Order: sequence, then structure tokens, then C-alpha cells
Amino acid sequence: MFDEVDTPAVLIDLDVAEANIDRYQAHCDAHGLRLRPHIKTHKLPMLARRQIAAGAIGITCQKVSEAEAMISEGGIDDVLITYNILGPAKLARLRTLAGRVPLSVVTDSAAAAEGLSAAFVDAPTPLRVLVECDTGAERCGVTTPEAAADLASRIAALPGLQFAGLMTYPPAGREREVQDWLARAKAAVEARGLPVSVISSGGTPGMWQAQDVPAATEYRIGTYVYNDRSVQARGLCTWEDCALSVLATVVSVPAPDRAIIDAGSKVLTSDLLGLEGYGHVLGRPDIRITALSEEHGTLRAGRIGLTVGERVRIVPNHACVVTNMLDRVELVRGAHHQQTAPVTARGQVW
Amino acid sequence: MFDEVDTPAVLIDLDVAEANIDRYQAHCDAHGLRLRPHIKTHKLPMLARRQIAAGAIGITCQKVSEAEAMISEGGIDDVLITYNILGPAKLARLRTLAGRVPLSVVTDSAAAAEGLSAAFVDAPTPLRVLVECDTGAERCGVTTPEAAADLASRIAALPGLQFAGLMTYPPAGREREVQDWLARAKAAVEARGLPVSVISSGGTPGMWQAQDVPAATEYRIGTYVYNDRSVQARGLCTWEDCALSVLATVVSVPAPDRAIIDAGSKVLTSDLLGLEGYGHVLGRPDIRITALSEEHGTLRAGRIGLTVGERVRIVPNHACVVTNMLDRVELVRGAHHQQTAPVTARGQVW
Repeated sequence: MFDEVDTPAVLIDLDVAEANIDRYQAHCDAHGLRLRPHIKTHKLPMLARRQIAAGAIGITCQKVSEAEAMISEGGIDDVLITYNILGPAKLARLRTLAGRVPLSVVTDSAAAAEGLSAAFVDAPTPLRVLVECDTGAERCGVTTPEAAADLASRIAALPGLQFAGLMTYPPAGREREVQDWLARAKAAVEARGLPVSVISSGGTPGMWQAQDVPAATEYRIGTYVYNDRSVQARGLCTWEDCALSVLATVVSVPAPDRAIIDAGSKVLTSDLLGLEGYGHVLGRPDIRITALSEEHGTLRAGRIGLTVGERVRIVPNHACVVTNMLDRVELVRGAHHQQTAPVTARGQVW
Repeated sequence: MFDEVDTPAVLIDLDVAEANIDRYQAHCDAHGLRLRPHIKTHKLPMLARRQIAAGAIGITCQKVSEAEAMISEGGIDDVLITYNILGPAKLARLRTLAGRVPLSVVTDSAAAAEGLSAAFVDAPTPLRVLVECDTGAERCGVTTPEAAADLASRIAALPGLQFAGLMTYPPAGREREVQDWLARAKAAVEARGLPVSVISSGGTPGMWQAQDVPAATEYRIGTYVYNDRSVQARGLCTWEDCALSVLATVVSVPAPDRAIIDAGSKVLTSDLLGLEGYGHVLGRPDIRITALSEEHGTLRAGRIGLTVGERVRIVPNHACVVTNMLDRVELVRGAHHQQTAPVTARGQVW
């Protein structure tokens, strides 16, 4: 299995990734949703371009370094960074990027907005800023529609900034509450005389219900491009829809019920996402990955039936973090290895 | 706090790391133990050199790529790779390395030993091979002393190889069982007429009891150089002994009991090592890091008392995996930033 690739390796099946991109783009097209994929999952300019070619209106990034890679190497020209950007170093880099392509960011505080304003006060065009809203996920975001309107007014009043709309990372499965929250926030902002041109929602867990939040004008998703064991466990994809897998070699079979592979937490990561075990061995649903040390993974089954040197292919719990572990991935189509690709946007501090 | 460093950043306090190195070297010297530090924790040639300068007899690596970096950039000339090395690509690289410095590897199967032999059959000097023994940790290793003797005999008979001794990654706190296991294995091997010149044990959890396994001739440890929250939780170090920390910025304070920082699972990792929460905020023992998403960490406390833009310093649960997340670390001494260092041996497939 992929003898030309040494292990452990992260394999990306482009046939599967492209089918995933096209399937969800078709869903968005059918429902009149604008799609803005989050590239944190793949960090590959070529896949960002493929998402745009399929019909995405732009991309989402979480870090300035991701946006830099996608703009410089991917030629992407519409980027939303869904993060509070703070501090002189990142603000200077943001200003440089904003001079090159249409760029939007989010914020959930006056303090962060004031930092953005100071950096863009003399920019040729104002920076587009969305207000991040906490619609129930309890991460970042203003916590009430009225607070969203207050911050929108503050942004609109700050030099160098343009209030551009609302953004949320919603809790999955609570579409009705999210819709209600966003509709109330939109009304509150409009009552201040400010137009709300963009309302950005997202998340792979709720992707097939995106249309149930009609207040949203665009949808952001990352994991859908690869899928993973967490998405499969939610019933949102099959193993055949998983584009990312880890190719590993059995390095030891110490007991009839146990084998050790050369992929540990430095490849598969310790992310559980509520699951038991650290991944799914394709073709061997009886095997559990019960423990990871840094460079070893422990496989257990009633009868392990593996030999030293044999290779296994594993769908990890969480594709987005596995992408981030190695400097390169192996692009394949079915059983055919295509090329090695550098993971352009990984390993950067910010 | 370190204004010249953008966040999130991995800080290494060299004063603390050097004190950790010297403290444990003194313990080994006092007990007549030979020390062979595992460089997976830092992956920095300069710290490997510092460990050697303090008195270590050589280093331990887990991967061929780590050994390559330490030999090429670190000038280290005695390396043990504690891993079953399989497959033509890695064996070819191993052969190249073995031509440059004294190199040892381990194996726990005849199949892996035969692969090593095939790669070294025509080498100018034989490859030193230790038998990996499972003394209770249930990872790799032959599972009985008799099996260790069988494999030692097999290695001794294979062309290109030299049987060099025994190696184990022992279960912490079971020194008496480990000593008994190794003593029996040594006797079994010697009964075959083979000398056992090296018995290598290791592990930071049992580091202060290393002398309680007198069968061992050398001790391998990694985490001790930095320490981390897991080591502190075992009572083996104080927070002041933790050389690695993550510098993060508060990016949002959405509620009086909650703040969000710019360090998530892509820096701190999801490793729990049996602990609750994802790290310790220095100076704020009341704060719990309750959740990580990829680029966000959630801090909670009765009264969070942090402001947007403020910086915090976090001791992660597991230093060895945090080292592996970013392409560079920031070397500091106390409050003074010294320089940025590339993490030479990270991000490599193997």
C-alpha cells in the first residue's frame, strides 16, 4: 500500500476531497447559500483554489499566517479572518494583506476594534469588520443582540473601519435559537441606522441544516473537505467520504491481541472529540486504538492478526489537527500516489 | 511580558533548563548512573550539546530524522534510537548515519532484526542492536526474559549486527519488578554465552528511583529537561522548575468568569496525561483551562480578572508534544528574551 511513501504519512485522497467539495457546494447552490470554506482543515492553497473554482465566494482563515499563505501562494482574493487580531506585529501584517485583497476580520470587543482602527486609520480603504456573536457556543462573541448593536455602532464610528456585518460560530443542532439570535441582532443593528450586509454562520456539524438559519447570508465550514471519524460518528459521512487518512506501519506485534504502529500522538494527536479511542483502522472495525504515546499507537483486538511491517490506514478523530502535525502530506487518488505537497500554512506561530 | 515576541509562542527558559540538566546529572553522578537523555522533548541541538557537556554519555532519539538533526547540527556522536526501524527508506538513512557516528538501535522481533541485518550485511562495522523488553508498560518489547534471550541469540547470529544489550521503557513505580525482569533476562542471555554490555532503562516519572534498578547500566529521560504540569502533579518539580511555557494573549473576555486566549489545541495540544484541564496559568492557580479549540483556549475562574490584550504564561500538561507544534521556540533567561531558535527536528515524517 503506497510503497513509495514512508510512514507515518498523512494521505489526502483528492478524488474524495473534490467530491466532498462539490457535494456541499451543490447543497449550497440548491439553497441559495453562499459558501466560504475554512482552510484551517487543509492549509493547502491548491485545495482553497479548488473550493473557489467549485463556487465558494472566498475563504475563511483563523490566523494571519494562514491568510498570508492563501493569498501569496493560493491567489485567493476574498478572505475573512474569524479572529480578534491584536498586537502591533499581527496588525502590521494584516494591514499589508488588506492592501492586496479584500479582507474582513471579526471582533467582539471595543478594545480589539480600537486596535484595528489605530492600525488602519490612514489606510487607503477601510478594513471591513464583522461583530462576532456568541449564539450559544460560549467561546468568543458578544453575548446579547443589544451588545452586538453597541459594538457595531462603535466600529462604524472608528476611523479606518467599516462595519460589515455579523459572524457566529453556532452551537450545532440549535438552528432555531441561532436564527432567532441573529435576526434580533440584525434588527438591533439596523435600528442604529447601520446596514447588515453579511451574516456569517458555519460549522461542519450543522452543515446540512445551514438553510435552517435563513438570517445567515454565508456559511463557513472546514472539516467537510476531508471529513473524519468525528463526522462519521455523527452520521454525516461514510468512511469512503473520508479524504484524509494516516498511513502507518506495524512495528511490533508483542501479543496476539495487540500491535504497535509508528503513528502516535505526534501524528494522530490526542484529540478525542467525545469519542473512545484515537482513530478508525480502515477495513478493521474490530480494532481499537487504545493508547498513543508520542511515536507509538497501540492497537487492540480479540485477534489482532497483523504482522510486523504490514501497513494500516487510519481515519483520525479530527482531520484539522492532523493536517497541522507534519510539514507535508501525500496527495493520492484512489490507490495511486500523485505527489508530495508542503502544508504551506502550518507550524507558524500566528 | 516579552513584548518583542508575538503570541502564541513557546518560551524556553534556558536558566531553568540548564538547572534541570545539572540537577539530574548530579543525581546520576552520585549514584554511578550513566545518563542518556531523550531529545524528543526539546528537539534542539544546542540543548543536546548542553546535556552532553554536563556529563551525559550520549543521547536517545525516537526517530531517524531526530538522529539526523542531532548528528548533523548538534555534532552528537553517540546515539541510541529506541525504535524498531523498518522499511527500505529508513534503513538506508540509518545506514548512512551509522557510517558517521556510533549508533545503536533496538528491536523486539526477529522480523525487524532481519531487516536491519539485510541493510547492514555489507557495512564496514556491524550495527549495535539492543533487545527491547516489555517489563510491564505493555507497549513494545518481548514479553518474557526467555524471549529476550532468544532474540539476543538471533541478533548475534545475523550478519551485519552486534547484540549490544537490553532496553526497556519501564512502568513507573514498579522498580522491584523491573529489576527482577532485567536481572532474569541478563542471566538468560548470558546463559547463551552472550555478554550484556548495556541495559538501558528510563522515564521521567521514575527518575529519582533510577538507582533502584541496579541491573540498568544507563538511564534515559526526556521530560526532565523542561518539566511540565504532569511532572508537577506527580510532585517531582515545582512550577519554578518548568522551563517550557506557552505565552498567550487574551483575545476576548466575554463574561466575568471566562476569557479566551490565542493558544488552542494547535499549540497546547489535547494531551491530558490523566489531568483535568489543559495547562496551568502561572500566577493564577484559580484559573482552569476548560476547553481548547484549534486556535482558542477557554479560561474559567470565579472572577477571571483579565483584560483583552493581556498576556498569560501557561505550563502545558505535556512539554514534549508542545515542542513539536511550532517551527520555532523563543529562548529566554528569566525576563530576558535571548533569541528565536528553529525546532530543528520537528515536523518530519520520520
